Amino acid sequence: MNFKMIIRTLGTLLRLEAVCMLPSLLVSAIYGQGEDLKAFILSILMLAVASTFALLAKPKSTDIYSRDGFALVGIGWLLLSFFGCLPYFFSGVAPNMFDALFEAISGFSTTGASILTDVESVPKGLVFWRAFTNWMGGMGVLVLMIAVLPSVKANNIHIMQAESPGPFVDKFVPRIGQVAKILYLIYLSFTVIITILLMAGGMPLYDALVHAFGTVSTGGFSSKNLSVGEFNSFYIELVIVLGMLACGVNMSLYQLILRKKAKVVLHDEELKLYLAIVLGAVLMIGINLAVVGVSTPQGSLRNALFQVASVVTTTGFSTQDFNLWPEFSKGVLIALMFIGGSAGSTSGGIKVMRILVLAKTIRKDIGKILHPTAVNDARLNGKPMEDSVVAGIHSFFFLYIFILAISILIVSLDGHDLETAFAASASAIGNIGPALGVAGPMGNFSTFSNLSKATLSICMLLGRIEIYPALMLVTPRFWKRSNL
Amino acid sequence: MNFKMIIRTLGTLLRLEAVCMLPSLLVSAIYGQGEDLKAFILSILMLAVASTFALLAKPKSTDIYSRDGFALVGIGWLLLSFFGCLPYFFSGVAPNMFDALFEAISGFSTTGASILTDVESVPKGLVFWRAFTNWMGGMGVLVLMIAVLPSVKANNIHIMQAESPGPFVDKFVPRIGQVAKILYLIYLSFTVIITILLMAGGMPLYDALVHAFGTVSTGGFSSKNLSVGEFNSFYIELVIVLGMLACGVNMSLYQLILRKKAKVVLHDEELKLYLAIVLGAVLMIGINLAVVGVSTPQGSLRNALFQVASVVTTTGFSTQDFNLWPEFSKGVLIALMFIGGSAGSTSGGIKVMRILVLAKTIRKDIGKILHPTAVNDARLNGKPMEDSVVAGIHSFFFLYIFILAISILIVSLDGHDLETAFAASASAIGNIGPALGVAGPMGNFSTFSNLSKATLSICMLLGRIEIYPALMLVTPRFWKRSNL
Repeated sequence: MNFKMIIRTLGTLLRLEAVCMLPSLLVSAIYGQGEDLKAFILSILMLAVASTFALLAKPKSTDIYSRDGFALVGIGWLLLSFFGCLPYFFSGVAPNMFDALFEAISGFSTTGASILTDVESVPKGLVFWRAFTNWMGGMGVLVLMIAVLPSVKANNIHIMQAESPGPFVDKFVPRIGQVAKILYLIYLSFTVIITILLMAGGMPLYDALVHAFGTVSTGGFSSKNLSVGEFNSFYIELVIVLGMLACGVNMSLYQLILRKKAKVVLHDEELKLYLAIVLGAVLMIGINLAVVGVSTPQGSLRNALFQVASVVTTTGFSTQDFNLWPEFSKGVLIALMFIGGSAGSTSGGIKVMRILVLAKTIRKDIGKILHPTAVNDARLNGKPMEDSVVAGIHSFFFLYIFILAISILIVSLDGHDLETAFAASASAIGNIGPALGVAGPMGNFSTFSNLSKATLSICMLLGRIEIYPALMLVTPRFWKRSNL
Repeated sequence: MNFKMIIRTLGTLLRLEAVCMLPSLLVSAIYGQGEDLKAFILSILMLAVASTFALLAKPKSTDIYSRDGFALVGIGWLLLSFFGCLPYFFSGVAPNMFDALFEAISGFSTTGASILTDVESVPKGLVFWRAFTNWMGGMGVLVLMIAVLPSVKANNIHIMQAESPGPFVDKFVPRIGQVAKILYLIYLSFTVIITILLMAGGMPLYDALVHAFGTVSTGGFSSKNLSVGEFNSFYIELVIVLGMLACGVNMSLYQLILRKKAKVVLHDEELKLYLAIVLGAVLMIGINLAVVGVSTPQGSLRNALFQVASVVTTTGFSTQDFNLWPEFSKGVLIALMFIGGSAGSTSGGIKVMRILVLAKTIRKDIGKILHPTAVNDARLNGKPMEDSVVAGIHSFFFLYIFILAISILIVSLDGHDLETAFAASASAIGNIGPALGVAGPMGNFSTFSNLSKATLSICMLLGRIEIYPALMLVTPRFWKRSNL
């Protein structure tokens, strides 16, 4: 393992984080609400010192292999979260490091779960930082580094593969910096467009930015206690719904559109299934709400559309307290928490692509029993699926459920009902944000024990970096000298 | 597909079911409580007529292939359940066919969930039949047929493979009838021993038989409203705990002991993990109960031992209303519901063997990332695991979770809380019996809607025959003419 190169790259990453804190510092300075300005200055100083030390490392070679990529992502996200939580801690907004880390990890992982009980009383600079961590985490912080700093001389494909959500990353090895740049340009365009559209609906610039960050990153941190419900505007809801749904799509599909390959996009199997899931869920919940009489048929569909889009893309904005919805609708939302958005999007969850592959494998298995001798290839978008990719997806699915189970058990020690422990854990590992019970959309995670907060923080991180990079760090074999 | 041979074999199966109803008829006659005697006579007559018609089929060949085996198991279990529910329906104990089928499927699948609100007021013949369906379902009804009727001329390996729980059936092709006979002899011995031990503890013959059936089959139907809690005897609890745990072990290990290969048994990885899970769960729940102060430390361990053994073997007997236990203990029990007992045992759930293989695959994956070029075989009991077997286990795991999710959604339409819908579904597909909430150990399934009862019935059946045989029946390709 190329340890010195890893340390050096981490140094660059922390320097980038310091730079990313500057806009929040500016917001802090503009609103001048007190402790937050000092907290940001202190945090930036600490980042500067740490990164300067790390950049002292002089690697003999700039080669980075697959396992270095995993290590970078695993350690990188831990460091980002640690330094990213300092503003909350220094300002006193978070009562202790558990809470501060929870909020930071929730931000970077684009979860959007919060320990804050009244976000409107928190200094605006910190609320902006919260939303900005969503934005940074959405497309990946290491990918951002590759996009803006082509000078990072490393075999970036391994970093990008380890950080990007979803099982498939096209293998554009030679021009990976170029690809990262294009992805971030698309991401930035979405952010700008949504900010403008929100302002056109009467939202002030500050709130529009916060909600645009939360939308494109599918993170879901809001500047309002009632989340998007505060604005009570169908126009704003619609902008955010379309924004969330658009960012739940594989970003490389937009690249294909730019390259005028719209036909490929229209036939993309994952996209079709994703849209079918959204439509199906909206109808199921809409009809359920209307039949039970929660609201009028139109109101039911509107509420269903917003919440389905918010949960399936794992954003976590809310316009309603879906905690009070009938059990069936809550059940559908929980199912969506597991499915998540598309691979290569900013969303979390298991991802539609994986569900698709898993379902296709079942079909193949049945075919094998019926016709043991027939050749029976499972295909995705016309191409045969490699056995190793399918096996990896199966392992991921099992790990996901296994980690969820452990988390539920630990959180249940708090004595909340099992629904709360279950939904909070599923929401954390799926990077959604609000859950059910005490952690519902109108609640927050402040009443959980420190043990639960730590467990859920780990789940959020695992969900965002898709388990393996973190798992490697706790594997004894990983740290054996022969690997170093 | 050899349709005539399938029909003929099904005819034999129904004839066997008619014979199996005779002991219950006898119990009915002895206690003379009324409607149940007539109900049994009518049911047996219907079985006799149906089987006589089926046996008219004259197959040209007695060959049976893999898919015929799956078809036999799928259709066979449906027919068994249909005819097996008739005594409940004709006697009026079940208010309608949904309830009657639920009770019958719960019996054959060794689930032990009930729609009866007061089992002690039900005629003893029917309660005996309930327990006897547990017993028949435990080792498999088609395996029983092979064991007692070697005259069934068919390639029985495919039937046995399709019906036996767990992914691995040793390939004793030529003497499969012999193997079935040995397995049933072991099963019968356990039944006799437990009956005698229970009677030694003061249980009347009738109750001893019912509880022995429920124990060895890990079915869990009791003759008492309070289940094993009624007897309030540590001795009886201990006999049942040891019986359940013994029958949660792969039955072929006992065969190895008989063949004096105890060393192989001691090193069996599944057995070791199974015992470790039991021990771990007993300690976790025991300590949790003691700390929370539900009972004394000794009492807590005793209660934990009984309930862990009952749930991990998917039996479902109870001595306590664990619905009232702290959330953590309930969470551990739910986790056990998913794990289940060993492959090749009478228990349900995902099976320890599959969990073991899934965990080993994860280890292998990590090894692959660390050393991409190294040869890296995952081994089980010293033998390398075949890729196709591993892939099958992964598919099974996904299907299990997928079917569970659908069931939860449908059951949640009843408006019970999500914990109830979740636990009832997990309990049904895992063949446990009691769940949580309204379907807890002191409750029953009578308040569920017919839709939920049907859904849970399907889950019980799917759990017992391990999904694929049933899945085949609803695959259009299965019914294509070219297959017939």
